[in-house]
Amino acid sequence: MSVVWLNGSLLDESEARLQITDRGFTLADGVFETIRAVGAKPLWLPGHLQRLKAGADQIGLSIPFKEDVIENAIAQLLDSASSATSAIRLTVTRGPVAARGLWPSKQAFCPTCVLTIAPASAPSAQDFVICKITRRNEYSPLSRIKSLNYGDNILARQEAHERNAGDALMLNTAGNIACATVGNAFFLIAGRWKTSSLTDGILAGLARRRFIKELDAVETPLSVKAIMTSEMAFVCNSLGATPIRSIEGHALPAEFKASSMSSIYSL
Amino acid sequence: MSVVWLNGSLLDESEARLQITDRGFTLADGVFETIRAVGAKPLWLPGHLQRLKAGADQIGLSIPFKEDVIENAIAQLLDSASSATSAIRLTVTRGPVAARGLWPSKQAFCPTCVLTIAPASAPSAQDFVICKITRRNEYSPLSRIKSLNYGDNILARQEAHERNAGDALMLNTAGNIACATVGNAFFLIAGRWKTSSLTDGILAGLARRRFIKELDAVETPLSVKAIMTSEMAFVCNSLGATPIRSIEGHALPAEFKASSMSSIYSL
Repeated sequence: MSVVWLNGSLLDESEARLQITDRGFTLADGVFETIRAVGAKPLWLPGHLQRLKAGADQIGLSIPFKEDVIENAIAQLLDSASSATSAIRLTVTRGPVAARGLWPSKQAFCPTCVLTIAPASAPSAQDFVICKITRRNEYSPLSRIKSLNYGDNILARQEAHERNAGDALMLNTAGNIACATVGNAFFLIAGRWKTSSLTDGILAGLARRRFIKELDAVETPLSVKAIMTSEMAFVCNSLGATPIRSIEGHALPAEFKASSMSSIYSL
Repeated sequence: MSVVWLNGSLLDESEARLQITDRGFTLADGVFETIRAVGAKPLWLPGHLQRLKAGADQIGLSIPFKEDVIENAIAQLLDSASSATSAIRLTVTRGPVAARGLWPSKQAFCPTCVLTIAPASAPSAQDFVICKITRRNEYSPLSRIKSLNYGDNILARQEAHERNAGDALMLNTAGNIACATVGNAFFLIAGRWKTSSLTDGILAGLARRRFIKELDAVETPLSVKAIMTSEMAFVCNSLGATPIRSIEGHALPAEFKASSMSSIYSL
């Protein structure tokens, strides 16, 4: 079994348990980060902790441990890691509550903090569809933080699989391209790399920021029509870059070589 | 401590625990119902079970127990009830998973089913604001089912409290009135009761359906301007009707008497 860290304790996963009144479970009231690690070294950790804090601030949630405690917990998990590269998930919720309701009055919250670790493998090229069943909500601040509210993204991924694709590009309510289900999307259009703007209902990805710099990419609203003329495209998150092989059955002229960007994910 | 029902077992709440990999906790991957009970009798139970099933179908989730098992579990919880009226929460999630990721391939899911009970009291009149921080996403099917993705509603309720109100009315992305944070809203405008349409990004409330019939209410998109001319207004859910005393500081001319509608919530 895997080792996990729960509220200050390193435990075997079989012993780590949550209360059924945890607001992460009942109301998706929390935030998380997914962190790549190579060997014993986590990648972009200051950026992840900063974003976790910003997301928690947005929903009025206090992170119950100081950064050095979380860093130490990550180091302990990585000590137990069996694979060369790992994905660490750091989740903070508003914790268990005695009273029911959306926002119980006079309730003191006792947040839950969980860290888990799993082997991570390099992503491979995928066929993409454009999600029809749902859209990203650029009117919600949750579209810009990594909250637990992943229901729409799950629907989009399910649709992709039902349509024999690996993943889906999601539109926002304006009908522009937002992102994929677990990453930001980049498109090479007429010789210039482009990616959606932060106001289009997307997470400010840590990999996104680096790719924008590396590729001198333009942040701009992107129509479906525009991305269908892409020469190359990929999706990126903190774990890696996934080349987009096709969009809605249209094969892209060239495949993005994620390996050419390996410096971005190096320590 | 409270008695709860978890995956077939009646337990003391202190003994009921979830795995940290439960997708209800990690990704808000589930649905729920809140059911009113008077004494040992649950209200509108067939309607709740039908809606739970429809919501679960929408997200491709199998409810792991037959209706008679859930009905029996509710009866067991109500046997332990200490108050005259209770709120029963029935939650079904996609359950714990060994593999990480949005939709692990070749993963067999083992859904989690939880029932909890708490005392319910009659709602009292509240001052309402119109939520500024976020909007309901009428482009998402999740806006029409009772999924665990309650993050936007929590933001709206927090905003209401920060602005010294009891609750908030939420707009959809088109800028029309959708609903309150935990209920559908009705407005008496120029002598006619009106409520938002199902396509406006709202849950098809069980109380809503009954009030539409009782008040001969019109289902129609409602602008902010229109509702600011309301003579009376209220919010309803399965637990009761909350009179709206004021909207954005403007007192309504008359207060809705929830007691005049007591037949709706009677058995």
